Amino acid sequence: MKLYDGGRAPNPRRVRVFLAEKGVEIDLVPIDMGQLGHRSAEVSALNPLQRLPVLLLDDGTALSESVAICRYIEELHPDPPLMGVDARDRAIVEMWNRRVEMHFLASVAAAFRHTHPAMKEWEVPQFPEWGEANRPKAAAFLEMLDKELADSEFIAGDRFTIADITAMIGMDFTKPARIERPEHLAHVMRWYQAVKARPSAEA
Amino acid sequence: MKLYDGGRAPNPRRVRVFLAEKGVEIDLVPIDMGQLGHRSAEVSALNPLQRLPVLLLDDGTALSESVAICRYIEELHPDPPLMGVDARDRAIVEMWNRRVEMHFLASVAAAFRHTHPAMKEWEVPQFPEWGEANRPKAAAFLEMLDKELADSEFIAGDRFTIADITAMIGMDFTKPARIERPEHLAHVMRWYQAVKARPSAEA
Repeated sequence: MKLYDGGRAPNPRRVRVFLAEKGVEIDLVPIDMGQLGHRSAEVSALNPLQRLPVLLLDDGTALSESVAICRYIEELHPDPPLMGVDARDRAIVEMWNRRVEMHFLASVAAAFRHTHPAMKEWEVPQFPEWGEANRPKAAAFLEMLDKELADSEFIAGDRFTIADITAMIGMDFTKPARIERPEHLAHVMRWYQAVKARPSAEA
Repeated sequence: MKLYDGGRAPNPRRVRVFLAEKGVEIDLVPIDMGQLGHRSAEVSALNPLQRLPVLLLDDGTALSESVAICRYIEELHPDPPLMGVDARDRAIVEMWNRRVEMHFLASVAAAFRHTHPAMKEWEVPQFPEWGEANRPKAAAFLEMLDKELADSEFIAGDRFTIADITAMIGMDFTKPARIERPEHLAHVMRWYQAVKARPSAEA
């Protein structure tokens, strides 16, 4: 099994943090996305959508989509559970991970891709006004999240889960996307400091 | 257990088709999204993101996000399996469902929300150029999908899954989004006719 890894980009990092939380090591194949290595013939053969990461199984199956890769790892290595512990909890974790993906990470990514000069070759054409419009969407999500985090230690309840990984990476990504850190949101900032202090945050 | 349903919109329909494939009936609470019922106090209390559907469990837990709801139903009613049958297969189904969501349904939805006059109150502000730019993205995904469907009966292999539901609803949604039907893609059209012929397509 090998993981085609894309370095600092958010999705490759989601999977590496997940693996670090599990204490699982997988051979990495580094791909330089800055040099557009994800559009190479090798990666395109594994994922026609030319996105990273890709987990290549020993039987030749190429798994892409970060959460699909995480789900496979979760089934192989159930402890510690990062995607829920029973039917109801798994659904709650999935709900929160998706809320964070669709309403926060996607907005931060849209702001970055459509406004950052370095993204000109990646997002063709860029629509800077659409990028701008995503900044308040990301901020509004964090306002909502702050109310939820008033009552729970982590995003999907009292256990650290994949939803925290997605949100931490989204928060880190606000910096290059030039979205202001929500210093006024005490619960979000308390949660963010706690997840950033975990060793997995370095992955 | 009750399902707060949003009628013809794609996400409410995804869950109803999933339930129809399972042969599971749940009491529906119809919400008129045309009258912005999803922004009512009742729905906002169940889902602060004001999206439908929402599954309200008997213990008071409100589950939102269509795929989280489907995952809960899948665990309660495993047969027929619509989200995979073992670790590898579940990851493949998740990969395909996400590919369809992010690269097809999201593009069709963006085209619709940013260009359709009826969406002026939903997507504020609309960016018609961004909507237009999503039409070729949706078309490019279908080109890729056609190559995959040359070798498999359904999107995630030889079994009908949630990925087929998401893609069928995306295909249906191309019409109001004014994206041309890909009549030149023989495998996509064969697949689409097959999934549309299932009784669940009426849900």
